[in-house]
Amino acid sequence: MTTILALVKSSKALAKLQKQLPAGIKLITAAEASAADLAQVTILLGWGPLGKEILELPESQLQWIQVISAGVDALPLTELKKREILLSNTSGIHAQAIAESVLGMLLAHVRGLQTAISQQAQAHWQTLPHKQLTTLTGKKMLIYGTGHIGQRIAALAQALGMETAGVNRSGHAAAHFTATYSMATAQAAVQQADVIVNVMPLTTTTNQFFNADFFAQLQTQPIFINVGRGASVDTTALLRALQSGQISYAALDVVDPEPLPPTHPLWQQENLLLTPHISGIFDGYMQQVNQIFLPNLHQFLENGKLVQNQVDLTRGY
Amino acid sequence: MTTILALVKSSKALAKLQKQLPAGIKLITAAEASAADLAQVTILLGWGPLGKEILELPESQLQWIQVISAGVDALPLTELKKREILLSNTSGIHAQAIAESVLGMLLAHVRGLQTAISQQAQAHWQTLPHKQLTTLTGKKMLIYGTGHIGQRIAALAQALGMETAGVNRSGHAAAHFTATYSMATAQAAVQQADVIVNVMPLTTTTNQFFNADFFAQLQTQPIFINVGRGASVDTTALLRALQSGQISYAALDVVDPEPLPPTHPLWQQENLLLTPHISGIFDGYMQQVNQIFLPNLHQFLENGKLVQNQVDLTRGY
Repeated sequence: MTTILALVKSSKALAKLQKQLPAGIKLITAAEASAADLAQVTILLGWGPLGKEILELPESQLQWIQVISAGVDALPLTELKKREILLSNTSGIHAQAIAESVLGMLLAHVRGLQTAISQQAQAHWQTLPHKQLTTLTGKKMLIYGTGHIGQRIAALAQALGMETAGVNRSGHAAAHFTATYSMATAQAAVQQADVIVNVMPLTTTTNQFFNADFFAQLQTQPIFINVGRGASVDTTALLRALQSGQISYAALDVVDPEPLPPTHPLWQQENLLLTPHISGIFDGYMQQVNQIFLPNLHQFLENGKLVQNQVDLTRGY
Repeated sequence: MTTILALVKSSKALAKLQKQLPAGIKLITAAEASAADLAQVTILLGWGPLGKEILELPESQLQWIQVISAGVDALPLTELKKREILLSNTSGIHAQAIAESVLGMLLAHVRGLQTAISQQAQAHWQTLPHKQLTTLTGKKMLIYGTGHIGQRIAALAQALGMETAGVNRSGHAAAHFTATYSMATAQAAVQQADVIVNVMPLTTTTNQFFNADFFAQLQTQPIFINVGRGASVDTTALLRALQSGQISYAALDVVDPEPLPPTHPLWQQENLLLTPHISGIFDGYMQQVNQIFLPNLHQFLENGKLVQNQVDLTRGY
């Protein structure tokens, strides 16, 4: 019997999934799983410490991991590759939510909403100076990462009248980007940007990419937004860039370390918005996951392959 | 000599205006104006208590008031009409700023940013439940007011994937609205709306329009946004609608009374965003005002008429 271990929180989503499973499939949760069950797990839905334990069992039957995130940087990719374990992600389902979050972050800043929310907490009605309130139309956005999410951010930004440029590995064209650059050729675009957004996956190339050297080249005091991965940014360098004015404002949904400890100096920094890794979350998320998982499951049962969202274990996304 | 009295704050904008004025025009500010000057004022740029004083001078020469707002509800329209004083507004220049503010307000709520900002103030990293985080795409927005501002809000909302319907006096069609209704025929649309936005001017018809009866008909617990005028909403009824759940959330850039006193119960209400009448403000605002004022001035000097933005003193907008 094929056993699926679900490492996900939503019991409602699991109940729905249970009804849609083919016959002969056992779906268990971490709370229900005995030691014997763990050794029988063929498929993992989600990832966590228990996944690692299963991987380490000498008798492990694990063949496929379907994570419920886009990023897979937390998984032991080299080990999975060596053991020919399939990995699939949920890349694509977060695009609209993250794009709306990025626009919301920008608008909360340029339209004075973050300041207003702080004033509201003190029952304080005070108008804001004209120079603090700008509009996004006509501004230049440069997005690192031109996949599903980057394209959706670019589409919404264009609808607001922004100019959009993108950066990816080769500089290949992508929908909703007026121009695209490789990392090596992006410098002029970086130096003209009003808003810089990171949505890149975390890989050896992108790890600590936004560092002191990156911020030192900036000339327009842009807004910096990270909805990719915290470790793509050198947090100390970012803090200094905010303090020195190399960047005028930052909005971070992901940080390094995460969760951010209560004593971390970022909490005290002005011109900053911190959100707790929520930009990709939305109601109905697990139903969207199931729309990736179920077709993959049918294919897997038929011939051990996946139909969508398989991760290249060498490339890391 | 034609004398313009400028009742505006920006000395930078006035210096620019001064350079663009035709010969033989005197531009003075309230700080510079002597009593003799006031009696000579032909044109007012802006409005305030001093404008009222000038109107009341027996020897007043006032012929034209160019306000720097879209709304003219603070002016004595009946008196102006009786004395055949021209009135022009700056309707149109606020559209992008207000539309971006409305989107920002919505996104700050549905994407959890307002909650995150409150948590940030307490150095508290805590994820939010999936059900609290939604996306705007597919949601229904109903906008009261289908002029420049309403159309721009609708255009941006459509770009995010929202369905847009509008309400105006006659129910006439308007760009970026899939459907439009008169106030008398809007009930079904009101009862289906996920988001209701008010951008109507304040007139005898719209005064206290959003009252207990309006909120009582709601069935979908919509979000309510007011970027029109505070007095179009019965504040007490709104507060009760929030408390009873007739509306799930409100974002108010304008309130009645304004400024909102520190002891007003609205400040303590949850599921509410209060911004201090800033949605139409943006950097470069006064340059946009000058682009309305200067062509009007040339026409006025030629034949005593205006070329744009003249207010119908009977209709009130």
